[in-house]
Amino acid sequence: MNAEIIAVGTEILLGETINSDASIIAKGLSELGFNVYYHTVVGDNPDRLKSVIELAKSRADEIITTGGLGPTADDLTKETIAAAFGKKLLMDDESLRTIHGYFEKTGRRMTQNNEKQAMLPEGCTILKNDWGTAPGCAFEAEGKRVIMLPGPPRECTGMFRTYAMPYLMDMTGEIIFSRNVRVFGMGESAVEDKLSSMIKNMQNPTVAPYAKENECFLRVTAKAENAQKAREMTDPVVDEICGILGDVVYGVDVESLESLVVSELTERGLTLSTAESCTGGLLSKRITDIPGSSACFRGGVCAYSNEIKADVLGIDKKLIEEKDAVSPEVASEMASSVRRLFRTDIGIGITGIAGPGGGSDEKPVGLVYIAIDTKSGTEVRRQIWGNARDRVRGMAASNALDMIRRHIKEL
Amino acid sequence: MNAEIIAVGTEILLGETINSDASIIAKGLSELGFNVYYHTVVGDNPDRLKSVIELAKSRADEIITTGGLGPTADDLTKETIAAAFGKKLLMDDESLRTIHGYFEKTGRRMTQNNEKQAMLPEGCTILKNDWGTAPGCAFEAEGKRVIMLPGPPRECTGMFRTYAMPYLMDMTGEIIFSRNVRVFGMGESAVEDKLSSMIKNMQNPTVAPYAKENECFLRVTAKAENAQKAREMTDPVVDEICGILGDVVYGVDVESLESLVVSELTERGLTLSTAESCTGGLLSKRITDIPGSSACFRGGVCAYSNEIKADVLGIDKKLIEEKDAVSPEVASEMASSVRRLFRTDIGIGITGIAGPGGGSDEKPVGLVYIAIDTKSGTEVRRQIWGNARDRVRGMAASNALDMIRRHIKEL
Repeated sequence: MNAEIIAVGTEILLGETINSDASIIAKGLSELGFNVYYHTVVGDNPDRLKSVIELAKSRADEIITTGGLGPTADDLTKETIAAAFGKKLLMDDESLRTIHGYFEKTGRRMTQNNEKQAMLPEGCTILKNDWGTAPGCAFEAEGKRVIMLPGPPRECTGMFRTYAMPYLMDMTGEIIFSRNVRVFGMGESAVEDKLSSMIKNMQNPTVAPYAKENECFLRVTAKAENAQKAREMTDPVVDEICGILGDVVYGVDVESLESLVVSELTERGLTLSTAESCTGGLLSKRITDIPGSSACFRGGVCAYSNEIKADVLGIDKKLIEEKDAVSPEVASEMASSVRRLFRTDIGIGITGIAGPGGGSDEKPVGLVYIAIDTKSGTEVRRQIWGNARDRVRGMAASNALDMIRRHIKEL
Repeated sequence: MNAEIIAVGTEILLGETINSDASIIAKGLSELGFNVYYHTVVGDNPDRLKSVIELAKSRADEIITTGGLGPTADDLTKETIAAAFGKKLLMDDESLRTIHGYFEKTGRRMTQNNEKQAMLPEGCTILKNDWGTAPGCAFEAEGKRVIMLPGPPRECTGMFRTYAMPYLMDMTGEIIFSRNVRVFGMGESAVEDKLSSMIKNMQNPTVAPYAKENECFLRVTAKAENAQKAREMTDPVVDEICGILGDVVYGVDVESLESLVVSELTERGLTLSTAESCTGGLLSKRITDIPGSSACFRGGVCAYSNEIKADVLGIDKKLIEEKDAVSPEVASEMASSVRRLFRTDIGIGITGIAGPGGGSDEKPVGLVYIAIDTKSGTEVRRQIWGNARDRVRGMAASNALDMIRRHIKEL
């Protein structure tokens, strides 16, 4: 089955908004086994939208649109598509009540034009919008299946995964189930190389690698008649992947290194503090991105100048002069000092050269020392990672999180 | 003139990569005064690519493609487009030398298939790639203008703005010049309201509002026969906007609040330190995102727990108990304590409830106190900003930066 994704919105056409909806939907369609051959973006113009719909009818079995379901005069997707399939729009009372309720709940006044959002193609399946006001819809006509979703990414993503994917699955009579194996410390191409026969040859479940900032992950996706079967099909494959890749796998079905670290520290009642130089607070920012991180994270010092390393963290000025601020010795002292000062189980120290300036032949831009201090002692990791400031800093913070998750088990 | 943007790449079609190139190009084309009516994404498939090119020829004057210029067998854009316009591909010696040079410079071995990147349509204008190996190209044929750019966003963005936009301007005989007026503390719709007649009625220069995370900006764009004329046309409009909006304008042609703050502090020889609770290091992270921030930023304390507020910053425990950690009094003490401890001209203190938990009727999620302490005293700003953790934290850090930039002039 061939699907086509159509985004309707002048703001995307003009480049003011990036078409991230298409990427979310395309990924989901791939998981469901649909082929996607074209994405199109068209503005809020009924003639051009009509021509795009006619073209899609001629080359796709499923047409999925985003955008143009809102209350204003230039929101024309439903009108135009319904007309292209010879359907009328009818007022749906339940959707209207939901829209009224949404405004009441958020304490805003509802203007008349919002009622337009409850006008839906006759005989359609209504896709609820739990994230905003405009409902989506789906119908079959002329041998094609059409799904319309709102444009705002939060609404579109939620509705696509919660309502549109099950609608498509119902049609195929199959369940799709995915597990994600998260990897840090091995690049996407090395992972692909180690698992090449699985990635190339497996049909159900499939194994697909994805790159993510400074790390990568594998998605194992099975299709089966029910969730339990699908789960039984993925589990041994996940186990096999974990066995092949070893300890670079930091988690299965976890969100991120920081969420893993926060949940494992909290579970074991361990506490953490950080002393950051070149990362400038990025590590503590990432840890405190996680709700509930206050259960394990007591805080940190951003020691961006040498005086602060000495005055606030109490590191010997002579050591900094002799060994240089970017050295394994100073990283270690930062980790142990902050751990002492903040009275935590784990202390982290990070010092390096984020660039673009400040590098030398001996100590190039991208060199970072990351130290972890616990009751069992201190360990330092040396990182040389590119020369782009963002990546140097991001990778240093990720390395620190990776060191924490590897030490948790010993504490 | 009507332009169409075509992205060639299976990775975009499958949703593994977001089509950010289209947004960059669409914005640039709008600045140049081209109409953009369609974006299309198609995979690395010669038949489908051919059908997309034929359709674009039938409805657009300018066709701009991204992707498929690389060295591998599935990179087919040049071959397919040249064939659609009855052109041959010829080896370009200078491009070949550049590609060889690129590999030498980066110390990597060049494989044979890289030479394919120097095969270009006969009679084309070559667009240099200063960011990677694959050159782009442009040609006119059958009354259409075709521009091909590589897919990686860094390469595509650089080449589009540096080489493709001037190529298109040469064709139109006009220069495009833009200035950006950055605003914090007034929403996009309020800005639009205040400037509605300028935004609606001005033709050259144009005035367009854009929303950016937690802030917004206005782009004033003029077309003229040379840069000086365009500048003379934009300057009075920029002045008028600044006059109407007043001190919510924090800068013209600056990158961000943090880059403004870092450059102004550095220029005046002033120093800064931060004490963060709910933002958890986000403010110091954003300041140290800016290269050279070590000239003014000495560091900070992330005091995520009450004990750290007392033990490290030296805030009276009784005050925290009496007034609560989320209070203007504690924010003030954090600011003055960190200023004293780090011996800086400016100290910032931030404490609040980022959510999702921890709120009460009296102190809801989203409540943040931000304090600034200088030799002239302490000032506290109270923020209530939604209930999404990311936005609460982002807005608190932005408010702190806004307070700094407003105080710099007095110091």
